[in-house]
Amino acid sequence: MPISPDVKLGQNVVIHHPELVNLYGCEIGNDSKIGTFVEIQKGVKIGSFCKVSSHSFICEGVTIEDKVFVGHGVMFINDLYPRSATGNQLQTEADWKVVPTLVKSGASLGSGSVILGGVTLGKECLIGAGAVVTKEVPDYAIVTGVPGKITGDVRKKNT
Amino acid sequence: MPISPDVKLGQNVVIHHPELVNLYGCEIGNDSKIGTFVEIQKGVKIGSFCKVSSHSFICEGVTIEDKVFVGHGVMFINDLYPRSATGNQLQTEADWKVVPTLVKSGASLGSGSVILGGVTLGKECLIGAGAVVTKEVPDYAIVTGVPGKITGDVRKKNT
Amino acid sequence: MPISPDVKLGQNVVIHHPELVNLYGCEIGNDSKIGTFVEIQKGVKIGSFCKVSSHSFICEGVTIEDKVFVGHGVMFINDLYPRSATGNQLQTEADWKVVPTLVKSGASLGSGSVILGGVTLGKECLIGAGAVVTKEVPDYAIVTGVPGKITGDVRKKNT
Repeated sequence: MPISPDVKLGQNVVIHHPELVNLYGCEIGNDSKIGTFVEIQKGVKIGSFCKVSSHSFICEGVTIEDKVFVGHGVMFINDLYPRSATGNQLQTEADWKVVPTLVKSGASLGSGSVILGGVTLGKECLIGAGAVVTKEVPDYAIVTGVPGKITGDVRKKNT
Repeated sequence: MPISPDVKLGQNVVIHHPELVNLYGCEIGNDSKIGTFVEIQKGVKIGSFCKVSSHSFICEGVTIEDKVFVGHGVMFINDLYPRSATGNQLQTEADWKVVPTLVKSGASLGSGSVILGGVTLGKECLIGAGAVVTKEVPDYAIVTGVPGKITGDVRKKNT
Repeated sequence: MPISPDVKLGQNVVIHHPELVNLYGCEIGNDSKIGTFVEIQKGVKIGSFCKVSSHSFICEGVTIEDKVFVGHGVMFINDLYPRSATGNQLQTEADWKVVPTLVKSGASLGSGSVILGGVTLGKECLIGAGAVVTKEVPDYAIVTGVPGKITGDVRKKNT
């Protein structure tokens, strides 16, 4: 079943197409919304009033606080030098250490952005569409481009 | 059901895996083809002889004319400063204004490209793979990179 | 059925959600693992001990050797100037020539990367997350950015 029995869903979580997601071992807070074609791995915690849009992938090691917007096709990463095999064996969890990522409350991650492991995305920050985030994002910062650079501050926008 | 009853499909529309798409409130013209893992939102109009390839997301506010190629994993956007919540409420449609996007006939959008809201992509233009389009694209222009810049004209290519 | 009967699966291939993939006419080697929301087209050959992560698209013309890691949301391309229609007809296979791509053993393709057709990705190379690969990648090279440039050598990393 694409929503595993070990998923903890808060109250009023909206998943329009439970048959078209892949959630396992994760926790989703109250009043959050999960789009179609989304995969969320074990150990992920997502807060309340979050939106995770279609086609996004949230890997083990990611913690998302409240009121975070994850756009469409956003990819999180938890292994900076991934390899498929070690010797003649497919790698298993024993072969790598999950690099944690924290997304603070109110952050907004633009569609198509890629978030490398080991970073913290600050409170209410705005990650531009298609940006590749490779390091710490301060609170309220606007980050755009590949690799992502700070190009503004959301407190100076009147939106 | 992943193809909502309110979807208007023209004649000879090809959808190989109707159980693996998410279409609602949209209109697809004659002889067009929709790939797997595609989401198309309400209000979207797609013309005739278009191809929308796998893993793409077409949001409300997008109009696509005839003979347009949408590559794989293409993401459209209709909200330039998306937020998940306003106060202690998940944002609803009342909280933002959809920014419209027009893709003119014969355009070709490369795989992995991201199209920001509010732009027009000109007739027969070519958007490079992985480009992030942030502004108007003239007819026949080739746009590549992040952010997308005009790097050529399709009329000068012998393809 | 989302795994077509003409797919050749080796021994011990792991596909956790066969109902959420789209595989046809392809060949997957022993002990490889295919994630959810993955499409693999006809003619593709994937070796042994490979991981193809969720949301990736592998098109006709691609050959992947052993022990290759394909991250999440990776898009391959086999047509450099794609168009939807020729005259008043949707393009068919007769209208374009598939451009082949070879991924050599041990390569690692970061999440969100886009691989243009006609290139060879060298042995144990590392493609950065979100990179757009437009040309040949030598063995052991690290390639990052849009367009992708060589920025290191995996033999000089202690990983």
